Amino acid sequence: MLEALFRPKSVAVIGASAKELSIGNRIIKNLIDFGYTGAVYPINPKAAEIRGIKAYPSIFDVPGEIDLAHMVIAGKFVPAAVEDCGKKGIKAIIINSAGFTEVGPEGAALQKDFLERAKKYGIRILGPNCQGIINTDPTLRAYCNFTFTKPDPGFISIVAQSGGVGELIHQGFSQMGIGTRIYASNGNASDVSITDILEYLGEDEGTRVIALYLESLSDPKAFMNVIKQVAAKKTILAMKAGRTAEGAKASSSHTGGLAKTDIAIELIFEKLGILTFRDEGELCQAAAAFASQPAPKGNRVGIITNTGGPAVIATDVLVDAGLQIPTLSESAIDTLKGKLYPESAFSNPVDVLATADGGHFRAAMDVMLAEEQIDSLYINFVTPFFVDTESVARQIAEVNQQHKKPIVCNLMTDPVQWAQTVDILKTGGVPCYSFPGTAARALAALTRQGALQTRNIGKAKSFADVDSARVAKILNAATAAGCAMLPASDVYQILDACRIPCAAWKITDTVEGAVSAADAIGYPVVVKADAPSVIHKSDVGGVAVNLKSPETVKEAAAHMASKINAPDLKFFVQRFLPGGKELIMGAKAEKGLGHLIMFGLGGIYVEVLKDVTFKITPVTPVEASEMLSSLKTAALLTGVRGEAGIDQAGVIDIILRLSQLVSDFPQIQEMDLNPVMAFSDRVVAVDARIAL
Amino acid sequence: MLEALFRPKSVAVIGASAKELSIGNRIIKNLIDFGYTGAVYPINPKAAEIRGIKAYPSIFDVPGEIDLAHMVIAGKFVPAAVEDCGKKGIKAIIINSAGFTEVGPEGAALQKDFLERAKKYGIRILGPNCQGIINTDPTLRAYCNFTFTKPDPGFISIVAQSGGVGELIHQGFSQMGIGTRIYASNGNASDVSITDILEYLGEDEGTRVIALYLESLSDPKAFMNVIKQVAAKKTILAMKAGRTAEGAKASSSHTGGLAKTDIAIELIFEKLGILTFRDEGELCQAAAAFASQPAPKGNRVGIITNTGGPAVIATDVLVDAGLQIPTLSESAIDTLKGKLYPESAFSNPVDVLATADGGHFRAAMDVMLAEEQIDSLYINFVTPFFVDTESVARQIAEVNQQHKKPIVCNLMTDPVQWAQTVDILKTGGVPCYSFPGTAARALAALTRQGALQTRNIGKAKSFADVDSARVAKILNAATAAGCAMLPASDVYQILDACRIPCAAWKITDTVEGAVSAADAIGYPVVVKADAPSVIHKSDVGGVAVNLKSPETVKEAAAHMASKINAPDLKFFVQRFLPGGKELIMGAKAEKGLGHLIMFGLGGIYVEVLKDVTFKITPVTPVEASEMLSSLKTAALLTGVRGEAGIDQAGVIDIILRLSQLVSDFPQIQEMDLNPVMAFSDRVVAVDARIAL
Repeated sequence: MLEALFRPKSVAVIGASAKELSIGNRIIKNLIDFGYTGAVYPINPKAAEIRGIKAYPSIFDVPGEIDLAHMVIAGKFVPAAVEDCGKKGIKAIIINSAGFTEVGPEGAALQKDFLERAKKYGIRILGPNCQGIINTDPTLRAYCNFTFTKPDPGFISIVAQSGGVGELIHQGFSQMGIGTRIYASNGNASDVSITDILEYLGEDEGTRVIALYLESLSDPKAFMNVIKQVAAKKTILAMKAGRTAEGAKASSSHTGGLAKTDIAIELIFEKLGILTFRDEGELCQAAAAFASQPAPKGNRVGIITNTGGPAVIATDVLVDAGLQIPTLSESAIDTLKGKLYPESAFSNPVDVLATADGGHFRAAMDVMLAEEQIDSLYINFVTPFFVDTESVARQIAEVNQQHKKPIVCNLMTDPVQWAQTVDILKTGGVPCYSFPGTAARALAALTRQGALQTRNIGKAKSFADVDSARVAKILNAATAAGCAMLPASDVYQILDACRIPCAAWKITDTVEGAVSAADAIGYPVVVKADAPSVIHKSDVGGVAVNLKSPETVKEAAAHMASKINAPDLKFFVQRFLPGGKELIMGAKAEKGLGHLIMFGLGGIYVEVLKDVTFKITPVTPVEASEMLSSLKTAALLTGVRGEAGIDQAGVIDIILRLSQLVSDFPQIQEMDLNPVMAFSDRVVAVDARIAL
Repeated sequence: MLEALFRPKSVAVIGASAKELSIGNRIIKNLIDFGYTGAVYPINPKAAEIRGIKAYPSIFDVPGEIDLAHMVIAGKFVPAAVEDCGKKGIKAIIINSAGFTEVGPEGAALQKDFLERAKKYGIRILGPNCQGIINTDPTLRAYCNFTFTKPDPGFISIVAQSGGVGELIHQGFSQMGIGTRIYASNGNASDVSITDILEYLGEDEGTRVIALYLESLSDPKAFMNVIKQVAAKKTILAMKAGRTAEGAKASSSHTGGLAKTDIAIELIFEKLGILTFRDEGELCQAAAAFASQPAPKGNRVGIITNTGGPAVIATDVLVDAGLQIPTLSESAIDTLKGKLYPESAFSNPVDVLATADGGHFRAAMDVMLAEEQIDSLYINFVTPFFVDTESVARQIAEVNQQHKKPIVCNLMTDPVQWAQTVDILKTGGVPCYSFPGTAARALAALTRQGALQTRNIGKAKSFADVDSARVAKILNAATAAGCAMLPASDVYQILDACRIPCAAWKITDTVEGAVSAADAIGYPVVVKADAPSVIHKSDVGGVAVNLKSPETVKEAAAHMASKINAPDLKFFVQRFLPGGKELIMGAKAEKGLGHLIMFGLGGIYVEVLKDVTFKITPVTPVEASEMLSSLKTAALLTGVRGEAGIDQAGVIDIILRLSQLVSDFPQIQEMDLNPVMAFSDRVVAVDARIAL
């Protein structure tokens, strides 16, 4: 329970200071200025009062109970102070001080020390090296934070893995006039994690939307479980930075995390249908729309403008974002022709002309909102001096208050001269922007959220025909033998057990055996030298493809035997399958999460175009299908230029079986099916590799 | 000469009105409020004065000379008023009134009428249906415009094909505190075109940067010639909207242009090395940087921050935009270690910590600017209350004034509480942003401009070995015969004349002739039925490929003869070239411009990936080379997976010869070389088509 942290009834500031430019002074000032409704106890051994509030030499001198303590003292004093807090019965501590894990082993030792003491008393710690929290709840108004942005009350909460970015979003909201509910950044995250904060926000009634910024995760599984619950109740606007190798490196230097460009966080968001952003400005701009607008039911936008060009820009941006600008019905056009100036443009965008008044705008809005094929409204409103712009604003605000369909507005004005017009729109809850592209992207975000709300990835399929016992036996034996890379015979037996189709194969010790195997399998065949001591088989002439007769098989096997003088040499004989489309599939363990399943077209497509797609296990049939359709080269799977498409159901089946295999056997670190040959009627793995 | 339009010594307002909310009143108010230094003459048959300025019943009553007249009268009175202006010796007219071509034939007739009269007197017309111009030159201060944004003087001029977008950019500049030099939007563009305005701005000394917005062009060639001259003198920040089919449609409805998503404008910008934007907000944000910063010499950025996360975001955005974040030299790190807090991050980004003061920032800036491998500086500056932020701002401003290397700053602050800090940066010419991504994109735009300045596409090559006389003869004969689609024999003769390599070929009337032709060419061959009456040859069995013997050629030709009972049937016999990489090339006439040359990989690459690239003729060797390297699948040309690359010089040679052919013979409307087969040592066209 983080109630004491986020809704403290009383706050002590340990290290309260009379110096104006100290954090121990500023936190008290912030609490007072913001109108905190609880008790504030400055703790200072010498001062009688700080900023007019009675100070106490120690927390033990404070007469009442203390919910939350700030610590603004040197790191070396923190462990003892935490111990004292425990004795006093304090429930939560915000450690603003720095000088812990982020500065090296000595600081880390201090952090370990105070954490142990906190655990002993059941105290929750936010930080160290953090700003603190803000809760704008009007009954509370807790500004337990040394930052300087004073938010209006609202229902969007901000949680950020970086105090700087949290503050950035906070400032963005402030400049856009968006209210904030709870603000939290947790610095070194020694105890209270981003996941914990999210969980709390999920329960907080005043929070309807959460803006979340992440750079990395220490426990992705726990995060995933929590955020899934939270996302079911709140809209989450998420952003992950450190996407590039350079960004990840910059992130690791300030979070102390590993420098890796992990894609798992974005995949978690995708799996759970959480709206993601790649631009922090766009996130803030979208938040302004989410603050008052519902998500639209579909992607079809009606555009109303009183000046041409900006609607062209908006159209471009909306279409680029996958939205549609449907044509209007004939009856709608007829109605508009009776109500707008004759020179108006009666298509979508509707141009009501610069001279349009409130009545014209109202008519256009009413007609477009009544159109079944329109899911949302985009208004571009320039404020000419010769028009009663306040009347236009009132009409837009009134229609917006009906909450029929979401509305965004690009407002082209001088906010000083037209302050009243701006105010009518703002009070009316109309999200206003000052660039058409910005407004369009905010509407696109609302629309993506609408689509995510109706997306259902279903459940993973469980294949009853899989012989798990056989797989377990092979893997256990390999583990017992200390085998990191499974031999081909084991790999193919596992594929068999999982009913993952693969080209017919046999394994044999002798050249003669290879010939009999080929006879049994049928020609043409591939022969591969298989021996634990031979890693790069093709480098030493250990692979021969497209052998069409017993003679060529014999010759190839004999040649391998002579070249590779290994006692453990075996011949892996497999049916050769010419033609078909080359696919690759794979699975890779992701620490603390499960596995990532990879799928793509092989050969040049993966090498040149990097055209591969990932999902987190367990992959559901819907997700597997998304993997196919999300490839840039998806058309090659369904068939182009008169070519037949491939057996997509077969591909999906293998993806799902692969997902089940690695989920059931997490000891599999890495697994490749490369290539998988796809034909119009079947899909067959022809080479595979499993690493434990 | 547009001097009278952009630098009028006196302005008459024909249709001046005493009504406050009329355009004829507002223009006078704007001129007065903005401090116009010339004479203003309200023209009104009844009023004695308007806004305190003496009014005249007619322009003939005005005692002095009039440079520029505004017309704010009903359309039907405009032609006679223009005539009067001519008689009075007025040199330029801004027609603010609407009601001309944009409303139909009657309006168009009026427009034609006043234009003829204007031409007679040599009067230049801006509009009709336009806002007008603004010139902030302190000695002039001409606000000949009815809009409401009052710009600070500056040296960025705005020219927009849409008054709405012009105003949008203008408002954007105003909100960002960027000054404007000249502002112009020309409405219906009956006389003064965007090209004319650009030409004027090119000559205007006060203009250093031009923000240009376009939707379509009526005379691309003239535009190209002018903008080339202008771009040599001024930095141009260009944007074209109507990129999507829907956007083009929206554009056509307000500009009266054709609804087509033409790429020619973007190609013109590219050819001339003009910086383009796809987002109007980004253009304005970049303008804020261009207003004070030079373009960097390279793409390597040094980042200084006093909070971690925002630098991570900036790093991601910079890297995505192709910029580099180089590591610092060891000596730089050593110097920094002596000057910054020990807990600082001494890599790039340098994190000076939130507690850093002006001295720390200065040290970091000095060290990074001295690094040879750093071309520009990105500063992220949050203003903690416990730091003397004004000192930090002074240091940044001071370093910026040294103009060593460009600097942008993401300033995280509350502009009210830290007004003084903001002001120091602003006065010091430091471009400040409130999101790291925004600042990063502005720096990326500066960097792109730097790269464009050093790009030199060179001149087109002229091939002396081309037999132009032979090409002319063939084309003239075809034109004389009224032939729109050239027969194969003509096409291949033209390729021969241009020395564009193509597979050996012969044409013959008879089955026997086909066999002899095949014998002469060498096997395998392709045989195609060729007859003007047979369009879709393959549909009627008119194509047979990979024929390896005289017998198969005979059989195929005989079969075609029996199926295609056309009197003009001929057999086109050509060497069949198996293997090789399939390319496509083409040329298409672009009205008023020349031709667009297209190049891409054939087959699925063009069909599925749309991986093609375009240039405007004449294509230079540098541009041809860019065509190859700009493909998403460029790696396939240079070779992947151990495959040999193709003969890229051969590809470039064909592109250049194709460019020369269509440049020399503009009657060629469309030409395809599809496919062109590329091998490691040669490139050969195997099918071609020319339409006149």
